[in-house]
Order: sequence, then C-alpha cells, then structure tokens
Amino acid sequence: MNTEMGSTTQNGDAEGVLGQEFTSHVIESMGPNTSPRTREVMTAFIQHVHDFAREVQLTMDEWMLGVQMINWAGQMSTDRRNEGQLMCDVIGLESLVDNITYQAAARSGKPVTASAILGPFWRADAPIRPNGSTITFNTPKDGQVALMHGKVTCAETGAPIANAVVDIWQASTNGLYEQQDDKQEEHNLRGKFVTDANGDYSLYCLRPTPYPVPNDGPAGKLLSMLDRHEWRPAHIHLIIQADGFKPVTTQIFDEDSKYLEDDSVFAVKSGLTVKFNERKGDPQATLDLEYNVTLAPKK
Amino acid sequence: MNTEMGSTTQNGDAEGVLGQEFTSHVIESMGPNTSPRTREVMTAFIQHVHDFAREVQLTMDEWMLGVQMINWAGQMSTDRRNEGQLMCDVIGLESLVDNITYQAAARSGKPVTASAILGPFWRADAPIRPNGSTITFNTPKDGQVALMHGKVTCAETGAPIANAVVDIWQASTNGLYEQQDDKQEEHNLRGKFVTDANGDYSLYCLRPTPYPVPNDGPAGKLLSMLDRHEWRPAHIHLIIQADGFKPVTTQIFDEDSKYLEDDSVFAVKSGLTVKFNERKGDPQATLDLEYNVTLAPKK
Repeated sequence: MNTEMGSTTQNGDAEGVLGQEFTSHVIESMGPNTSPRTREVMTAFIQHVHDFAREVQLTMDEWMLGVQMINWAGQMSTDRRNEGQLMCDVIGLESLVDNITYQAAARSGKPVTASAILGPFWRADAPIRPNGSTITFNTPKDGQVALMHGKVTCAETGAPIANAVVDIWQASTNGLYEQQDDKQEEHNLRGKFVTDANGDYSLYCLRPTPYPVPNDGPAGKLLSMLDRHEWRPAHIHLIIQADGFKPVTTQIFDEDSKYLEDDSVFAVKSGLTVKFNERKGDPQATLDLEYNVTLAPKK
Repeated sequence: MNTEMGSTTQNGDAEGVLGQEFTSHVIESMGPNTSPRTREVMTAFIQHVHDFAREVQLTMDEWMLGVQMINWAGQMSTDRRNEGQLMCDVIGLESLVDNITYQAAARSGKPVTASAILGPFWRADAPIRPNGSTITFNTPKDGQVALMHGKVTCAETGAPIANAVVDIWQASTNGLYEQQDDKQEEHNLRGKFVTDANGDYSLYCLRPTPYPVPNDGPAGKLLSMLDRHEWRPAHIHLIIQADGFKPVTTQIFDEDSKYLEDDSVFAVKSGLTVKFNERKGDPQATLDLEYNVTLAPKK
C-alpha cells in the first residue's frame, strides 16, 4: 500500500498525488460531535477508499463509471427491488457482514441455526398463513410441490418454542419472485407461519430451482465486467423470530442443486444444505422436506 | 488489518467470520475474459471493501444504512444533479482521483495549469458567448461584477493558443447554480468563450461567494454524521480545451474567501487561488480578475 506519495512537489505550484497527509486531513475534518462508532467506521472507510484509489491509480473515467453505477442502482431501486443491495451481494459483502454478525451471535458456544443473507426480495408485508396450508398458488407445470415441516427449539434447553414466526419466500421455477412477475399473484410463494404449542410449523412450497439474479442493472453489468455468471443455487429464504430469542435470517439450499460451489452472491455455507425426500400418499405433494430451527435466547 | 479470522470453525457447522480465504474466493471468481485493468481495479476494490468490513466488524444495520444511502443518491440524481458524485466529493475521493490524473499529466515536467474537481453542476450544453459579453443575467443586489480576462498559452512554447474553449460556470450569491434555482434564467452564470488570435478571452462574471453544498440528500446526511459543515470557499469552475492540447478541468478560488482551509469537498490546492482587484472606469464592473491558462500539448 503506497501511502507516501503526497510529499513531492512539482513545478512550484503543482502538488504530487495526494497521499496519506491528504487522507488524514479528510479523516480529521470530522467534528467533535461525531459518534465514536461513526468515527471508527468512517475512518476505516475513508482510509480504504483512498488507499484503493492510490493503489490502482484510479482514473477519472473509472471513478465516474463507479458513480454512474451507484446512481443507476438507486434509480432502479423501488420498494420491490434493491439494486444497491444486489451490487453488494455480487462482491460478497452481504455474506461477509452476515457472517460477522453470526460470529458474534455464536460466541455463546450454543449450536444455533446458521444464518445467510436476506437478499433483495424479502417483503415486510407477507401474510400470516395457517400451518399445513400452501404458499404456491400459481404452481407451474414444471414445479414439484414439497411438504416442508419442522420444529423450532431453544438452543439452551432444547425445549420447543411456541408462537415462533417462520417467514418464508422463494422464487418460482421461472426464476422470478412474485414482485418481479406479473403472472404470479400477490404474495405467491411467500408467507409467515406461526409454530404451534409443540414448536411445529408446516406448509406446502415448491422445490426451489436455480435462477439468475437480475442482469438488467448495474449488478448485472458488474457481473458481466467480471466475466461471471448470474446463477444462484436452488434455495428457500427464511427469517425465524420468537419472543425472547435472537432472530435468524437464513437460506436453505437443495443439496442436489447446481451452483452450490459458485453462487453468484456467495451465500452458501456449510450447514445450510437440505435434502428433499420422496413423499408418498399425499395428493398435494410428491416431496418431503424436514427443516428444524434452533434459536439462541437473548442474554 | 485482520485477514486471519476465517479459519476457525465453531459448533461443527458454524463457520467463523469469513476471512481472506473468502475474499480470495470472491476475487478468483472473476472469469478469464475480464480485462486486465478491470481485474486489477476490482481485485483491489473487493480486497479493501472486505478488509474494511472485517476491521470495523460492520453490522447488518450499518451496512444497510450504506445501501440505503447509495440508493437514495441515485434516486436524487437527475441530468441536473449528481448526488453519487457529491457523496464521493465529501470524502475527498474526487479530489484524490483528480490529483492522480494531474500527477500523470505533470510528469512531462512542464508548468501546466493546476486542475481541480469537476463537481456535480457542470452542464454539457452551455452556450458559446462572444468575448467581452456577460454571463450574469440576473445579477443579485449583493453581487459584485468582475471583468475576468486572460490568455491561453502553450506550456512548451509559450505561444498563444487561438480557438481554445474556456467553459465557465459559477453559483449566484444565494449559493445556487441556475439549475438549482427557478429564479435564475437558463444558463445564467454559465457559458463558453473562444480565445481570439492572440489567445485572449474575456467576460463579465460575479465575484464568487462561499455556499453550502446541498444538504437535502445522503451527502448532507453524511456531513451531518461526520459533524462537518457544508460550506465551500468562493470559486469559479472552468474547463479549458484546445485542439492538440490536454484539457484542464479546474476551479479558481478567491484568495480572500472563507473556507479555503476547510472546503467541504477538499478541492483547494496551492496554485488555484486568484486575486480580485479594483477596476475603474468600467460602467459594467467594479472588479478585475486576470486568469491565464497554460495547456500541455498532447504527446
């Protein structure tokens, strides 16, 4: 890292490339009322951004391309799509931050359910549905329906947790979430399920299939610049919350899926793969998926 | 910099914080058709972003605040406003990149005119106006008019450069550029001037005054978080171009202005300050500003 470039002076009034002295000046311009945490985070952020620009001798055109991609991300984002988040995802940042958070939660030493990134397609207003009901209302011809079921328990006592909320969402076999697809009804493949007195939940869903992340915005352009594919392995998104416990945001991956090794958003971790088994005698489903969740109590 | 955090494994299936191994995996996912320069830039970018997140143990909430600010920047940006650029400016990035570029240009050893950042208020479609004409069409009561004039010459031979284009823009005394202010007419305080056979240009403009950068978007929020003021010292923006010469983007600062030491976008450099002198016998102006420009020939 070259932080000693700023001291040379050329041609009398022409300064050399702004070095660490300039970066320190920018950092030290923070006022006394900045919170300690903001100061810590922004000191490191400014230092790394400046070091990056100096290391690669960033040009105005390259910088402006970055600015345009930031502005483009915002312009594409709506309450149904978060392109800024997707750009972070394709460089692994959301997975990294998720893991930092998970590591902090796991320091208790108890085996809690592994986390994964939220992704940009969660919606706050998904409906609560009864256990045993379905989330697939526009089942495509190539879709396989599974009964998904499991128990939510306490990581310390092993006791079942009643009234835990299991919030679940998934894409259809065309790779689109309902908010991306006019042909799916509102909240298709999405719903919240509340565990019963035994901590159990159940629902009918689709066996997930791999799909590409949207490539019509700056995240897609970035993937193309990096010569990378857009595909994600087959997965189901979940947030599990219960009163008195730390919530978990996660994804579960079909262990037979393609792209487990090269997920375009780097969300696959050990402990997150699940197995779909054959299910017999159920007119609603040909597959069975058991998925149990362990939550850590709040301190 | 902690890059050794990723190797520990807790609780069987719970991985530790993703360390350098994860970062290398993200970097190495670039395909063979990435251009060498894209690979160089993005390798450094991903490394620094990941190192930043690990160093400060970035939380999901903090990361999401950053995503929201990125999206907000794009949503505020139009063809008349570039908030993504302004966010970069308040952390000194545009000045740094400008200086990297200028350093490369100055390696020839000739004394070319010092550069400064473009800023977000330049417009591509400013009109060409005759020498000796004005750019101030809505002169405010508190405005002082100056005759600005000078010569554009070659850095190698000292010869005057005819037909150089001097593109100039400035804010009014209320701190607003015309595209920000319904009360200013289109292209007020903005215009392009073409040097005559002697390399001379001249125009009437306002003596600039300090103004705050817009604080109604994420750049303003960032300044507030950093407990910094929004003010810029009094300045005039310029781009000078001529056939066969390297263009210069710069700003000139009134040497008597406030905020020369603490410009909110860090654009002030030595060699960019100018002096406004008294002007007598000119009914159009009470001040005189001489500003000469030296351009480096293209190799």
